[in-house]
Amino acid sequence: MHVAVDAMGGDHAPREVVLGAYQAASEAGETSVLLVGDSSLLESELRRLGRMPENLEVVHAAQVVDMEDSPTAPLRKKKQSSIRICADLVKAGRAQAMVSAGNTGAVMIAAKMVIGTIEGVDRPALAAEFPNPRGRTVVLDVGANVDTKAGHLREFAVMGHFYAQEVNGIHSPRIGLMSIGEEDSKGTDLTREVFDVLKGTGLNFIGNVEGRDAFSGSVDVIVCDGFVGNVLLKSAEAVADLMKNMLRRELQKSPLRQLGALLARPAFESLARRTDYREYGAAPLLGLQGGCFVAHGRSTAVAIRNSIRRAAGFSEAELHLKIQEKMVRLHSEEQRFLDQAGIQAG
Amino acid sequence: MHVAVDAMGGDHAPREVVLGAYQAASEAGETSVLLVGDSSLLESELRRLGRMPENLEVVHAAQVVDMEDSPTAPLRKKKQSSIRICADLVKAGRAQAMVSAGNTGAVMIAAKMVIGTIEGVDRPALAAEFPNPRGRTVVLDVGANVDTKAGHLREFAVMGHFYAQEVNGIHSPRIGLMSIGEEDSKGTDLTREVFDVLKGTGLNFIGNVEGRDAFSGSVDVIVCDGFVGNVLLKSAEAVADLMKNMLRRELQKSPLRQLGALLARPAFESLARRTDYREYGAAPLLGLQGGCFVAHGRSTAVAIRNSIRRAAGFSEAELHLKIQEKMVRLHSEEQRFLDQAGIQAG
Repeated sequence: MHVAVDAMGGDHAPREVVLGAYQAASEAGETSVLLVGDSSLLESELRRLGRMPENLEVVHAAQVVDMEDSPTAPLRKKKQSSIRICADLVKAGRAQAMVSAGNTGAVMIAAKMVIGTIEGVDRPALAAEFPNPRGRTVVLDVGANVDTKAGHLREFAVMGHFYAQEVNGIHSPRIGLMSIGEEDSKGTDLTREVFDVLKGTGLNFIGNVEGRDAFSGSVDVIVCDGFVGNVLLKSAEAVADLMKNMLRRELQKSPLRQLGALLARPAFESLARRTDYREYGAAPLLGLQGGCFVAHGRSTAVAIRNSIRRAAGFSEAELHLKIQEKMVRLHSEEQRFLDQAGIQAG
Repeated sequence: MHVAVDAMGGDHAPREVVLGAYQAASEAGETSVLLVGDSSLLESELRRLGRMPENLEVVHAAQVVDMEDSPTAPLRKKKQSSIRICADLVKAGRAQAMVSAGNTGAVMIAAKMVIGTIEGVDRPALAAEFPNPRGRTVVLDVGANVDTKAGHLREFAVMGHFYAQEVNGIHSPRIGLMSIGEEDSKGTDLTREVFDVLKGTGLNFIGNVEGRDAFSGSVDVIVCDGFVGNVLLKSAEAVADLMKNMLRRELQKSPLRQLGALLARPAFESLARRTDYREYGAAPLLGLQGGCFVAHGRSTAVAIRNSIRRAAGFSEAELHLKIQEKMVRLHSEEQRFLDQAGIQAG
């Protein structure tokens, strides 16, 4: 199992990325890491860390995609960028997955155009998992697509279904459509259209859900437009951070509170861990012919290490192949049904 | 100052609504409460509470709008409903504002059609305030409108500007446009169009913001479509609730943690208060010729009491008249500018 890591992407690149990759390679015997970026820079970072693990290899990339670059940079002006080379490595089969904390738009375009989508998928979707009292809820798309059409949201529902089955081990995942009221008639023109489409899929579609359901445990997969999903993802992170900061300040306001905080410290540490994106690692971009994981721009070494582990785990489970196989089966069954009914597929 | 309260709306109606109204009337000498609903039911609830405050009056309503009713019910089949009668009281000048925890869609339609919008406003917007480390950020719209056009978002920006000035005392509120990246070019076709419109308003428009900015203190007003705002509002509440529940469970896992929690209890209470929608009371529907406050469906007596206080405060400050005056001035200045330039207003 090989994971290509964009060493030049993210707020703390390359130092934290190199450290995270170093840790992942040192720990995981089965996983090899291809660290992609300016080789002289990366080698000097690696020298600081001591003996180079055997399963860590530096791959040179002469260019870097900046945050200001157009998302299409890896396809045009920056074909020698670390993002592009990561995608090339996956395409060539030298790596099974890539991880990047860099320019999200550029990562997604490079993945879609270089690695390519699987049969039956027009738009890859970024999937995020949120904690709830009983487990995890998958929300997709959280930012790969805006201005999506009903057919795309249907693809997201199908990919979310298989993701929840394969990754979260849920036999019949409950699929919800993000809306602003639970009644069937609520929402926009688009959500009403998607509602009818999803009712016809044979998935375990439970109807409209609301923002609160991403954290309640009442649904396993939530389908939404990437604009809405992105606002949800970023605001949820911000609320969690704000609350932790508020609590920290409140706990320092008196010696008694400080003592209480000291005694209860493991509780705070556990809460912090359970609500920290760094622990989850990167978000998978689903629907590709290989693995692509978008890490948080603020990723530290811990986040990168966990992202690499996650990418390796997904690749080992061959999640993208399973999704492809099931998408193809679903499409052929649908086609047979449509043929029998004498209807032309739309 | 008179506030009409829909005693039949919300998960805990009428009991908690009656109690909240009773408390608000008992405390606030200047504010009278008109409690609207089934009079025999309300009078029996009030008898349980003891002596009736002089500034509390029951107004009979023979019908109730259910959660399953169409939002247009107060205009058609349920003209004798408590929601409709609340709006009638504001329209007639017998109350300066109304408060309801009932069917949000019905409240908004009744308010728009019965109370009416102010000059220059086509779509009223529901405004929510979120805490940030330095103060509060106003987000609008959080659910009154879906499928909004650029011109509507411009109205929201102007109303948000005056709200932040009048209510939060900010001289030159920073206005942000909700998007999925901070660069000017990011977002949907709609947000790119609104971006250009807002640049031309003379407001302190700081450009695109992201979900996290609702909680960071980097912006005072965020403008968005009601669908996105509603997802933001409901998910933020859910994250806060989830974190408080997680923390509660973590703190009970050992005797030492329990002792720590006991010592630090005031810190948790303060956090809970600062992140509880009940403390803020209802969200104002801006752009009307009178006050209308949409309370949370799960409102308890505390939330209703705070909502009534808030409604009374806004009405006292004549916020809606101030917004109207400023909207009219803004429009006439714009018209003069357009006339001078020989351009027809769009």
